[in-house]
Amino acid sequence: MNTFGHTLRLTVFGQSHAPAIGAVIDGFPSGIEPDMDRIRAFMARRAPGQGPLSTARRETDEPRILSGLNERGRTCGAPIAAVIDNSDARSADYDALRAHPRPGHADYTAHLLWGNDHDIRGGGAFSGRLTAPLCFAGALCMQYLASLGVRIAAHISRLAGIDDIPIDMARPTFPLYAPGAFPAADGARARDMENAILAAREKGDSVGGIIQCFCTGVPAGLGSPMFGGVENRLSEALFAIPAVKGAEFGAGFLSADMTGSQHNDAFRWEGGRVVSDTNHSGGILGGITTGMPLVFRVAVKPTPSIALPQRTVDLSTHENATLSVPGRHDPCIVPRAVPAVEAAAALVLTDLILEGKGYGA
Amino acid sequence: MNTFGHTLRLTVFGQSHAPAIGAVIDGFPSGIEPDMDRIRAFMARRAPGQGPLSTARRETDEPRILSGLNERGRTCGAPIAAVIDNSDARSADYDALRAHPRPGHADYTAHLLWGNDHDIRGGGAFSGRLTAPLCFAGALCMQYLASLGVRIAAHISRLAGIDDIPIDMARPTFPLYAPGAFPAADGARARDMENAILAAREKGDSVGGIIQCFCTGVPAGLGSPMFGGVENRLSEALFAIPAVKGAEFGAGFLSADMTGSQHNDAFRWEGGRVVSDTNHSGGILGGITTGMPLVFRVAVKPTPSIALPQRTVDLSTHENATLSVPGRHDPCIVPRAVPAVEAAAALVLTDLILEGKGYGA
Amino acid sequence: MNTFGHTLRLTVFGQSHAPAIGAVIDGFPSGIEPDMDRIRAFMARRAPGQGPLSTARRETDEPRILSGLNERGRTCGAPIAAVIDNSDARSADYDALRAHPRPGHADYTAHLLWGNDHDIRGGGAFSGRLTAPLCFAGALCMQYLASLGVRIAAHISRLAGIDDIPIDMARPTFPLYAPGAFPAADGARARDMENAILAAREKGDSVGGIIQCFCTGVPAGLGSPMFGGVENRLSEALFAIPAVKGAEFGAGFLSADMTGSQHNDAFRWEGGRVVSDTNHSGGILGGITTGMPLVFRVAVKPTPSIALPQRTVDLSTHENATLSVPGRHDPCIVPRAVPAVEAAAALVLTDLILEGKGYGA
Amino acid sequence: MNTFGHTLRLTVFGQSHAPAIGAVIDGFPSGIEPDMDRIRAFMARRAPGQGPLSTARRETDEPRILSGLNERGRTCGAPIAAVIDNSDARSADYDALRAHPRPGHADYTAHLLWGNDHDIRGGGAFSGRLTAPLCFAGALCMQYLASLGVRIAAHISRLAGIDDIPIDMARPTFPLYAPGAFPAADGARARDMENAILAAREKGDSVGGIIQCFCTGVPAGLGSPMFGGVENRLSEALFAIPAVKGAEFGAGFLSADMTGSQHNDAFRWEGGRVVSDTNHSGGILGGITTGMPLVFRVAVKPTPSIALPQRTVDLSTHENATLSVPGRHDPCIVPRAVPAVEAAAALVLTDLILEGKGYGA
Repeated sequence: MNTFGHTLRLTVFGQSHAPAIGAVIDGFPSGIEPDMDRIRAFMARRAPGQGPLSTARRETDEPRILSGLNERGRTCGAPIAAVIDNSDARSADYDALRAHPRPGHADYTAHLLWGNDHDIRGGGAFSGRLTAPLCFAGALCMQYLASLGVRIAAHISRLAGIDDIPIDMARPTFPLYAPGAFPAADGARARDMENAILAAREKGDSVGGIIQCFCTGVPAGLGSPMFGGVENRLSEALFAIPAVKGAEFGAGFLSADMTGSQHNDAFRWEGGRVVSDTNHSGGILGGITTGMPLVFRVAVKPTPSIALPQRTVDLSTHENATLSVPGRHDPCIVPRAVPAVEAAAALVLTDLILEGKGYGA
Repeated sequence: MNTFGHTLRLTVFGQSHAPAIGAVIDGFPSGIEPDMDRIRAFMARRAPGQGPLSTARRETDEPRILSGLNERGRTCGAPIAAVIDNSDARSADYDALRAHPRPGHADYTAHLLWGNDHDIRGGGAFSGRLTAPLCFAGALCMQYLASLGVRIAAHISRLAGIDDIPIDMARPTFPLYAPGAFPAADGARARDMENAILAAREKGDSVGGIIQCFCTGVPAGLGSPMFGGVENRLSEALFAIPAVKGAEFGAGFLSADMTGSQHNDAFRWEGGRVVSDTNHSGGILGGITTGMPLVFRVAVKPTPSIALPQRTVDLSTHENATLSVPGRHDPCIVPRAVPAVEAAAALVLTDLILEGKGYGA
Repeated sequence: MNTFGHTLRLTVFGQSHAPAIGAVIDGFPSGIEPDMDRIRAFMARRAPGQGPLSTARRETDEPRILSGLNERGRTCGAPIAAVIDNSDARSADYDALRAHPRPGHADYTAHLLWGNDHDIRGGGAFSGRLTAPLCFAGALCMQYLASLGVRIAAHISRLAGIDDIPIDMARPTFPLYAPGAFPAADGARARDMENAILAAREKGDSVGGIIQCFCTGVPAGLGSPMFGGVENRLSEALFAIPAVKGAEFGAGFLSADMTGSQHNDAFRWEGGRVVSDTNHSGGILGGITTGMPLVFRVAVKPTPSIALPQRTVDLSTHENATLSVPGRHDPCIVPRAVPAVEAAAALVLTDLILEGKGYGA
Repeated sequence: MNTFGHTLRLTVFGQSHAPAIGAVIDGFPSGIEPDMDRIRAFMARRAPGQGPLSTARRETDEPRILSGLNERGRTCGAPIAAVIDNSDARSADYDALRAHPRPGHADYTAHLLWGNDHDIRGGGAFSGRLTAPLCFAGALCMQYLASLGVRIAAHISRLAGIDDIPIDMARPTFPLYAPGAFPAADGARARDMENAILAAREKGDSVGGIIQCFCTGVPAGLGSPMFGGVENRLSEALFAIPAVKGAEFGAGFLSADMTGSQHNDAFRWEGGRVVSDTNHSGGILGGITTGMPLVFRVAVKPTPSIALPQRTVDLSTHENATLSVPGRHDPCIVPRAVPAVEAAAALVLTDLILEGKGYGA
């Protein structure tokens, strides 16, 4: 379903070419005045039409808040509903696709769920455009989290086989890159990544990557055992971002090659707090935050929309077919997915912090 | 919390040294007679005391079903409660640990949640022992799934740096290994893995690994967009297995190095069904099953319980300390985690299939 | 929270004087074209400004559907978001109330939750206006239910001490009253009720009543034992309607005065179906529908907004105070609550029917 | 389903004649030592075999706690699982009933859900016996609530047409009756009620009643608007008690006959707290607690199990039939339902208090 969270609940709605997309955020603390400039700046990092690296679709992505504020513009405790109009939707591009599902897209599986009634225009409800309301909600949560000293920042740690420089998982330093810059920590590698995207675009192809996210100032003791752990809930949120095919925490898959004596993060006291020099656990033990930075990575597959001709099926004639996808697409979704990853982290942390009080932790 | 699922709901309870551990399974179809031999055989794959590769703790792990069956021994629609007694619990081993949290374990984070009242004996509620009720529930679900033609099988695809042979993600052949054998597809590599575990044990250390799981015969059209996708729900379940630090689907993290033209699985018709020759998507597009095999992997960190001395803190004196962990431990949890991974997949698939009818899919 | 339902989920947002109120409906079947005329007609029964019986506030209550429809205007499986603008909001009326909570209203309890940040204008998130999105959702569900042969109709069975004529709980005949008429089955009693409302208005006072609702054509076998029963879920929805203080099913509170031999509805076969001549159970046994009409009643308290002066407190000075509530109010909310009650029933039945398939019932 | 609650979650399992019934309580605060004497005393009020007023079935109803306690016997934060063995189950009594559903019972609706596999013995999962685990959980919660100054007490306010004396809803005085006495406040009326039960028993019939419950010391500001209100959640829990057919709060259905000026509870200051002289709201405004006593009533239908012959259907032959129900039954379930009502209130209040902290209230 399209609702996420326990104490803080986000409901996302909309399709790529519906009149609008939007979010309803329930359970957000009262008394906070949304910093719209900050929210717009955050959402701009996700918005399309930012140059040759992304789709040519242009959307202002201006969120209009319909409810949840009092007469002074502060959150009042009621659900916050925000709507983002879809303006630059060119539906004609998609009419031919209904019979020919695009490989790597949800066209075929949406057809399985909803038959010929699913909204195929622009990917419908499966469009990456649905990350805009996610980013609105995330930006609001990040404002709240910042007031508690929690900071969230992600970068592209790998793209098209190019690694960014390593960041210390135990003590990351922010910002990871200059505002407005390509989201990699090392300038030279950022340029290599950009060139790889442009090269893919030239060939009518696309590339994927890995996004690494750090959350600092996270209270210790958030989460609960078994199914309510931080990894469970973060991954539940992260896989809502289209194209995410993997999630790992701390040393993640590299843990498989380590020994216990290497992997265990030895505890020590520092300034009255329990810390560790390494952070292979990614700040999570037994599903509960340790107070060390939360560190995780997601794998983002290459954009399935490519200009190259592809083999597919014809769902009406039951014959095989060849497809060339028209329309405006991203040769790489990874840079625009970076704020979506941060937003998902912000949502989960806000939810955990709001409910965490229930444990008296 | 300790409950998972929507239409099928599993609640797990118990601690390592409580009188018992157990499971309550709600929403399971009526009219099925649990095949106790099959359930026992499945649970035996997870049970401790299987030789030099695992902990010396011995438990019969015999599940007693307290409710949910009618007078003929068939499921009656009411919740199925099963209890597994803890018999070989040696609590004296753990008394000294309360002040000295073990690195890599949940001792410290449990202390954050519940102070001095958390049950430290044997890892308490965070013990790998809690995967026994998970396996009971999974075995029951696998019996139901088998009647629908769904099969689930996992193997260790990597352990201590040693890779198992590759398995075709589009057309895996079962069984992956002989019943009772070490759970790797290639015999020689299985022996290498076993030796790596024994070597770690010798050193008082431990090793980690990667488990790969295949589900075949999965109906197409299960799952829903955004937060209700198969990846979201599977990962939510998988991270409940202690020591899991990553989850990936299909090509997973390797997707980051692929181009769209490589990654997209081209559709074609085969015997009236839509299939693909590759399965980089892992059988999931837009969060919905495609009908191709479901393929995913989890990263399992090396067992944190090691015999080597480790640095930690003293939570009462606020001084640093050195710890040598006594007790009986696994030098590698990976082989025993294989059925737990299959069980988590069985739970999620059963839940999705039971609720899937809601969509008329 | 502001979300209700399992397979069908309704999220309601908005405050009385926010820019808008609205609903997000998730899980609704695809392929249905909303009959906007029917929806408008249903919502008009709830709308204010209908003459001397209700508040003078005028709202067109035109729902705009922002998402969830495909290019042909049919539901596409994605969440249906609908927004209703607030146009005739006169916030000046409410400024003085923040320090003086109105007795019988949620002003004081909203203050407890959200301090001075709660939106006091027009009752904020507690306003009866929030039943407009509920009615939108209900009207959509009733269209779906009608296609399955399920019909829902409610009337005022008692108002200001005046009883409507009895309706046979086992075999109600629809319509209960002419479209557009005052919602009581007997014309003479309807006029008495109207006169009682006008008399209360004259005195600056208000009156309450009881609404009785019938659902026919309900499939047998909906619901589940314990907490998932039809009574549990219906009452959970019904108490979301402001001013509802009681809910009873079938014979309800009268059951307390009956013997088992009177109350038990004897089964018999009729046309291949199991029926009963009486329906004291209200169509529900063990929380599960029997196939007989669903019958329930809700008690609606008199509108707390009255023109008469009332004693209250001053929350800033901590002194007692006297309050005369200005603004436009209903001398009786009961007639406008009738469609809200039907809407709640439609939501619950749609949810139960969509999920009911999971049981194979 | 069989799980209830948000921050505190109760899962109930078992059937009347299964090996056991039980409860899993998740989210309960750590550090509390269950007072087993108090729990037993509470459960004894519900237990069968208490004399001529109730069924002759004898059960010790001794709860065994299998998990959730640490080595010192205090709650450790892990789920508390408790099992109550079924000892005096005489299944032979029920074999003939499968084809002949008992009027007023769930036999027919259970058949709709689960066909011939439902457990018909003793009412299966629909048995009043399932209130024993509810009472265990409630007794545990009442111990926690008592430590916060919250007290819960219920009495029979009406039985077989006989009213107990009125209790001041704004200022009830506890105890309502002497421990061990028939649960009515007035001794003479208690005897009248007892006689009415015995008279019904003599005739092979049964009687119903109304239970009124008071909760004092309830924190103000619990609950949330719309679907999360105290009435919504309490009624969701109360209708899980078999035979409950109505729930009302404060003045309840009598509100329908009152004017606003009568019904509104005027606020005033008393000792730094906002109070009211009347309590027609039952301590709830807008779904949120006011700090005044929580007052509600439930209607309990007469026990459907009666000795008198009844008309029913034969589900196998599709003919009408006559049924005489053998077995041991209560001529009136109302006295034994009193602690179940208190338990449901305790569960909801504990859940609300634990999660209430999320709002900072």
